[in-house]
Amino acid sequence: MLTRRDLIGGAIAGGLLPSPLTAAVGFDQRSHGFDIGGAGSVVPIFADPADWPGVRRAAADLAKDIGRVLGTDARLVFEPNQLAGRLIVVGTLGSSPLIDRLAASGKLDVGRIKGKWESFVIQTIRHPMEGVSEALVIAGSDKRGSIYGVYELSRAIGVSPWYWWADVPVVRRDRLRVSFGHYVQGPPAVKYRGIFLNDEAPCLSGWTTEKFGGMNGQFYARLFELMLRLRANYLWPAMWNNAFAVDDPANPKLADDYGIVMGTSHHEPMMRAHKEWTDNRQRYGNGQWNYATNRDAIRRFFREGVERNPTNEVIVTVGMRGDGDVALESTGSLQSDVRLLETIIADQRQLIADAMHKPAEKVPQVWVLFTEVYKYYDAGLKLPDDVTLMFADDNVGNLRRLPLPSERSRSGGFGIYFHMDMHGGPFSYQWINSNPLPKIWEQMNLAHTYGANEIWIANVGDLKPLEVPIEFFLAMAWNPEDVGREKIAGWTQNWAERQFGPKHADEIAYLVARYAKYNAWMKPEQLKPGTYSVENYREAERVWEAWDELVRRADAVNEALAPEQRDAFFQLVLYPVRACANLTQMYVAAARNARFAQQGRASTLVEEDEVRRRFRYDHRLRDDYNHKLAGGKWNHMMDQTHIGYFDWYPPEADIMPALADLDIEDSAAFGVSVDGNSRSWPGFYLPPTLPKLDSLTRRPTYLDVYPRGTKPVSVDVSANQPWVQITEGQAFSASPLDRRYWIDIDWTKAPVGKSEATITVRGEETVRATLVAIRANPEQEKEARGAYGGLTGAFAIPVTGFQRSVAVRGVRWEAIPDYGRVAAAMAPFPVDAASFGDPLASPRLEYDVFLPKPGRYRVDLVTAPTLAVIPQRKLAVAVGLDDQAPVVQAVFTGENAVIQDFLGSAHPINTASNTRTMRFEVAPDRAGRHVLKVAMVDPTLVLQQIIISNDGPEPSFFGPPDARLNG
Amino acid sequence: MLTRRDLIGGAIAGGLLPSPLTAAVGFDQRSHGFDIGGAGSVVPIFADPADWPGVRRAAADLAKDIGRVLGTDARLVFEPNQLAGRLIVVGTLGSSPLIDRLAASGKLDVGRIKGKWESFVIQTIRHPMEGVSEALVIAGSDKRGSIYGVYELSRAIGVSPWYWWADVPVVRRDRLRVSFGHYVQGPPAVKYRGIFLNDEAPCLSGWTTEKFGGMNGQFYARLFELMLRLRANYLWPAMWNNAFAVDDPANPKLADDYGIVMGTSHHEPMMRAHKEWTDNRQRYGNGQWNYATNRDAIRRFFREGVERNPTNEVIVTVGMRGDGDVALESTGSLQSDVRLLETIIADQRQLIADAMHKPAEKVPQVWVLFTEVYKYYDAGLKLPDDVTLMFADDNVGNLRRLPLPSERSRSGGFGIYFHMDMHGGPFSYQWINSNPLPKIWEQMNLAHTYGANEIWIANVGDLKPLEVPIEFFLAMAWNPEDVGREKIAGWTQNWAERQFGPKHADEIAYLVARYAKYNAWMKPEQLKPGTYSVENYREAERVWEAWDELVRRADAVNEALAPEQRDAFFQLVLYPVRACANLTQMYVAAARNARFAQQGRASTLVEEDEVRRRFRYDHRLRDDYNHKLAGGKWNHMMDQTHIGYFDWYPPEADIMPALADLDIEDSAAFGVSVDGNSRSWPGFYLPPTLPKLDSLTRRPTYLDVYPRGTKPVSVDVSANQPWVQITEGQAFSASPLDRRYWIDIDWTKAPVGKSEATITVRGEETVRATLVAIRANPEQEKEARGAYGGLTGAFAIPVTGFQRSVAVRGVRWEAIPDYGRVAAAMAPFPVDAASFGDPLASPRLEYDVFLPKPGRYRVDLVTAPTLAVIPQRKLAVAVGLDDQAPVVQAVFTGENAVIQDFLGSAHPINTASNTRTMRFEVAPDRAGRHVLKVAMVDPTLVLQQIIISNDGPEPSFFGPPDARLNG
Repeated sequence: MLTRRDLIGGAIAGGLLPSPLTAAVGFDQRSHGFDIGGAGSVVPIFADPADWPGVRRAAADLAKDIGRVLGTDARLVFEPNQLAGRLIVVGTLGSSPLIDRLAASGKLDVGRIKGKWESFVIQTIRHPMEGVSEALVIAGSDKRGSIYGVYELSRAIGVSPWYWWADVPVVRRDRLRVSFGHYVQGPPAVKYRGIFLNDEAPCLSGWTTEKFGGMNGQFYARLFELMLRLRANYLWPAMWNNAFAVDDPANPKLADDYGIVMGTSHHEPMMRAHKEWTDNRQRYGNGQWNYATNRDAIRRFFREGVERNPTNEVIVTVGMRGDGDVALESTGSLQSDVRLLETIIADQRQLIADAMHKPAEKVPQVWVLFTEVYKYYDAGLKLPDDVTLMFADDNVGNLRRLPLPSERSRSGGFGIYFHMDMHGGPFSYQWINSNPLPKIWEQMNLAHTYGANEIWIANVGDLKPLEVPIEFFLAMAWNPEDVGREKIAGWTQNWAERQFGPKHADEIAYLVARYAKYNAWMKPEQLKPGTYSVENYREAERVWEAWDELVRRADAVNEALAPEQRDAFFQLVLYPVRACANLTQMYVAAARNARFAQQGRASTLVEEDEVRRRFRYDHRLRDDYNHKLAGGKWNHMMDQTHIGYFDWYPPEADIMPALADLDIEDSAAFGVSVDGNSRSWPGFYLPPTLPKLDSLTRRPTYLDVYPRGTKPVSVDVSANQPWVQITEGQAFSASPLDRRYWIDIDWTKAPVGKSEATITVRGEETVRATLVAIRANPEQEKEARGAYGGLTGAFAIPVTGFQRSVAVRGVRWEAIPDYGRVAAAMAPFPVDAASFGDPLASPRLEYDVFLPKPGRYRVDLVTAPTLAVIPQRKLAVAVGLDDQAPVVQAVFTGENAVIQDFLGSAHPINTASNTRTMRFEVAPDRAGRHVLKVAMVDPTLVLQQIIISNDGPEPSFFGPPDARLNG
Repeated sequence: MLTRRDLIGGAIAGGLLPSPLTAAVGFDQRSHGFDIGGAGSVVPIFADPADWPGVRRAAADLAKDIGRVLGTDARLVFEPNQLAGRLIVVGTLGSSPLIDRLAASGKLDVGRIKGKWESFVIQTIRHPMEGVSEALVIAGSDKRGSIYGVYELSRAIGVSPWYWWADVPVVRRDRLRVSFGHYVQGPPAVKYRGIFLNDEAPCLSGWTTEKFGGMNGQFYARLFELMLRLRANYLWPAMWNNAFAVDDPANPKLADDYGIVMGTSHHEPMMRAHKEWTDNRQRYGNGQWNYATNRDAIRRFFREGVERNPTNEVIVTVGMRGDGDVALESTGSLQSDVRLLETIIADQRQLIADAMHKPAEKVPQVWVLFTEVYKYYDAGLKLPDDVTLMFADDNVGNLRRLPLPSERSRSGGFGIYFHMDMHGGPFSYQWINSNPLPKIWEQMNLAHTYGANEIWIANVGDLKPLEVPIEFFLAMAWNPEDVGREKIAGWTQNWAERQFGPKHADEIAYLVARYAKYNAWMKPEQLKPGTYSVENYREAERVWEAWDELVRRADAVNEALAPEQRDAFFQLVLYPVRACANLTQMYVAAARNARFAQQGRASTLVEEDEVRRRFRYDHRLRDDYNHKLAGGKWNHMMDQTHIGYFDWYPPEADIMPALADLDIEDSAAFGVSVDGNSRSWPGFYLPPTLPKLDSLTRRPTYLDVYPRGTKPVSVDVSANQPWVQITEGQAFSASPLDRRYWIDIDWTKAPVGKSEATITVRGEETVRATLVAIRANPEQEKEARGAYGGLTGAFAIPVTGFQRSVAVRGVRWEAIPDYGRVAAAMAPFPVDAASFGDPLASPRLEYDVFLPKPGRYRVDLVTAPTLAVIPQRKLAVAVGLDDQAPVVQAVFTGENAVIQDFLGSAHPINTASNTRTMRFEVAPDRAGRHVLKVAMVDPTLVLQQIIISNDGPEPSFFGPPDARLNG
């Protein structure tokens, strides 16, 4: 927790503003406080020669960071006896005699960091010692405490952690001052906060080969610096055809010097890359990666791994999976497999103790429950208490398990292995960021609340372009309070300001949040031409427009930014916005091509060109990223194929959506299609019927008229009722020749009750469509006011639009802003509340609905795809109408549980769309106003949408629009 | 039955040769018999002025037909008192006084036709009367008997029924003689033999409008003549936006004059077109086509229909369906609907009696059980005994019902409504002939055998291009013995000879049979890119080659024919062969395009061009048919869209299969794919494995190597075992750069038992594929000899390749040559045999199989999609191994019955592919030779294929190849 003394004036509210230290930094001559200097005159930085190499190295970074701001690097001083004047002092309690003296003298207040993990204090001190008039002291409780303190100052003076990794320019200043005061941070909420470079071909591999000649120390030095600036401390190195300790034998020591705790991935035990095995298996016994048949040789392989890290700070992965990232070969039965794994771990601990010359329980170890490994744990595998038990997510950012209260006392604690990138099942997503922060927050908040706080590690793929979720994940691991439920947007705004300054920060934060949100509607790799409905609810059109708006706004920001900011903006914002908008629109155009072909539209061919153009544009954007961005600095980072997935793995080459073609006749024939229908007339034998319109929802409808031949079409569209209003516009089509006729009702003129009109399209032929309009009577109007519903069709309720929220014993449904597919989702808080057995007496949301007739209605609750994280619970929720008993339904019971669980058949689509739909039914016994109640049973359920229909809404991705009546 | 006297020498064997009359016609001077004449000198034709107008009109056709052969038309004589010399006499018993006199005198032998339906005798008589030296007499038992007799002579002298309708040229002769003798035919097996012109837009409508100005008498005169030449007598006229009696008010009388019995379609009662209702409904009561609400008006509508046909020969359709060709609107319950229908029919019969001035039972009537109408019958609707009960098929040529013995005594008998063309469910097929004759024979033989012989009517769409199945259907209706099970190929050969002469008849018969057979593998409209497997069993490749062979042979015949024969050949053979081959190959190329894109092949783009080229070629062929064929005579007859079906109805425009595209990199990268696998390497993380090879089946395998970039690829393919043989060839691809490496085993060198080899493809990168070869030991070889099976994988058994066939009580499995997807199918005969309760004592087929190991094997019986034609029976069959009890399985029991029945979910795919698959299991307790037994339970089951596998064969359309071992 960052705190501040009263020396700094002004109100700084919570997490919505930059950190106190940032606020304490001033850039003009009139600022008060410790003067770091100006161009040509900068205070020196002292770091004790006895201090950790990593601390001294960080101090050197600070010296350069000051130079990045002021134009003059700070000088480094390592001689404690020659200090004079004003200076910056960096040092670690217990490692820097100077810092220890300052603490002992009482001038430096270390009360809140001493003995703490990775904590630091930044304090201005007048006359700290003889000959020194004033010092800015950065003191760490330990090695990384000091390092994080140093980088905290770097960040506060305007050097982004991403200054090199995303080309974020540093704003040049004339002067740098820090307000007098005492700034404390630490300890972090999560002890080990890490990333996993994974699935690194073709991007990261290609890039490191070209820029560094491989994944050597040059590359890792860059990476370690970034990690430390982001306050990460733990790394699983790249291991696709890479071996950290072999690719560059200097790598392990380099990591330790920097202060990075090394590990190996979930399936690579004992500090060895799996590639070390595959490259050398012939040297190990019978060459089988099978502890049952080749134990001695594998033990030797294990021993060599720990022996080369006798003193480095590491977390040793224990256990064993199969040969490569696959399941262990069974020894016959689950129980014998469990026994074998217990033997393996016991052997590994003995090897660790031998090689590191200390008891095994003094060396951090982790056992990762990944995919099938859960079953061994569930089957009762006995794990030594000090080994951290790490729960892997479902590969798509949904936790599979949380610690039970009965488990939480284990000394090794619990960790989480989280994915922001995946190469594997249920599908790969390696191209772009599709991790909206509210989703990360929602799941990691469960981890935090339920006490899985020993290690958090995120699979970040090639690292780029996941800059934003990586920083968010690490910030949350450092201090979850800073990025609380209501503070996610604020954090994003801060992030944007840190990279691009305050002027466009709001807009950039909007863009960064939005493109990730839209990407999480449906993972880009899982988009298909049919994902968004071309027929119903104008869905594809609305999605198209949403992306169009982002592109417009991103382009406008790009224009307004300074030229030197544009590289950073391109990689962090503009490229993902443009590329993802283009990708989605390409698929929608492909859907139009297919549908238009079925309708015999001449514009089928225009859509063909549209798709082709967008396919090429995707590659031009990729090439811009690889070749033009920062002069080609990031070449290969966008090499990942991402179009045309047909299996869980990425296609060899991007595959353009398949396109239909027609032979267009030389005629002036036209066709007509209507809202909500895929068919086309003249043609289909049943005549067209438009969707019913009603005076409560007041939605218009439309029909499209389009050429079917090469010649222009001229039609007259008219209605046989005076209350029908027809307005011509542009159809949702790449061709301007496709016209849309909007059809609305003048409800002041329409008769009360149900009326019918015929819309006639007259041209070479005549097409007649039927329209039914229902005008509410005054009683209906009065009763419906403010409720959800209408007189026709399916409708949705925005979940935050409840009329009443009933809290019980301090538990209530609260909003998670910007979650999922809606403006805000609702979930029971606190997330670790006990379940409620009686849905009549549980926290609930009440929505007033207006239903046009008695009978059965289907109620679809669109929730988050939360998994069975708490083993005893079934993830149930209840729905009721009025005073009818609410019906409880659970996700994880019986066959449904298997379908919905990880590896179940519903998992791929649930995770690709970040939803799960639960179907209920209510049966009002009369028409009119009712109260729909959604009552909590279990926590961790997140509610995104409520959709009410008779037999289900029309096929679409998002369902029908919200319908609040004269709200 | 045609018989002949001993005047004609030489042996003429059964149905495999032309009819006796044809054999009796000679064309040279030396021929003996009745001399019709030569150019410039032709005998006259006498027809009695008192005879039927239709008979006199047919005599006039004969006069012109003689002219077509000899260059000089015969003269018509109508004055019986002026006859002299030699002449042809045409007349009807009871209507021609001359014929009656000849019969009374004993000179004309009418013993076998008198009082018979539609029978005739053709007889040469010396000195039949005063002044006449010699006559060729054609005498009919009734009006159409005479007409058919006349056209029998026309056909025998070389005038095809299709001379105008398919431009079949008449061979000019110097002389025409008929051997002295007595030729009798009739009566026909089926009393009314008809066609239904249906689904007539855009083809028949467009053509008749352009050529005749509508469906008027000019058009119908052409049609009636064709029908009579084909010995049809019954017509349901076109009714899509057409009304026979209104379009041209002369039509009804014209039909009666010609001798055609008119009806209206299954859903148009009382001799009125439904269009007459839709055009005039406002004149009828409340305008509702609802007998419950608008009875009086509808009765008036009915009355007008029968009143305009007081004397014409008609069959009145009774009953009532819904408004248009849809189900009747229910009155509330099935029983009340049944009562309403009974009332309707009773009313209709009263109206018939009133209008026609005779008892209703004297007027032929038909009630058609179409689609949903069956349920009324099954619910017990009481139908007057004299009304013919017509069973409709399932819209795809599979009968739904046969008369039970208990029903057969009804005086009105039974009829069949059969489809060769459909616009409607389960899918439309309106473009081309996909009706192989063995399939028509198999089903109509059931109708004949089970006594549904009062009426046969076939829905023939636009009539063209269904010339062959129409003629076959009518020939079978005339005399089923002539086209018996073993005579179908002979009939087709005769047909070909009649149209094109003897020289190419065998080849043309082959082409005509084959293209229809291939079209029935999968209806052309239902073809998709994925229909035939590109990966497994070289299936798509084999299908491609089969069509290629037909095109080559059709092209060769076309070259060899005389120029004047080419129009007929184009429409009857060449167009369907070329267009269907091209269509299939277009879809296969589209499948390659999609698969190659997934494999990252550069040739993806070549396949794109291939598909595009074939799509355009389809339209060029269509344009040739419409515009070039016979100088544009058949314009519009090929207007039917047929590519890109996405619903049961035809697309508005042909939709080219959607095509994928890639951006091809500028590299020399290559890819490898292997037999039986869709993936591509380098790429997929598991290494490639080739299918296992074994020394018993001795099938080779292959891998393909192809460029992934723009540059040529050079690879070296080698094996690490001397017994592997590798041969380079052309891959199945439109690009010659895609190479195939055939991999076979030198079994003399391979070790006995299981061995492994690695095939290495070396180029820019290296790909290694694993190959397993299994060589049988001598005992296995001995045991396997002559059996089906092998040591690896799934295999098929050709059903005619049984080792033993066991007959029981005269019932045995017999072959239906050329049926379905195989060279011959097997079915129990006679088809009306009783079911067998005990499969241990029923007729069975035994196949020797060699199975490589004990365990469970799946046995798939691929049968015909026979429906539940005999209500009490379930369509069961039994499968057993060795002495294990055979397991009985039935198609029509429980839920399975619903799935399999008409309107069930299996029906569309069963009918599109003319198959149904029944899954059995056998479990040998040891490896080696066994006997697989297929035992009859119910008749009407037709067995096409037996496929044996472990867990099912690889996905494909036809399954694995036949595997007879060293047979």
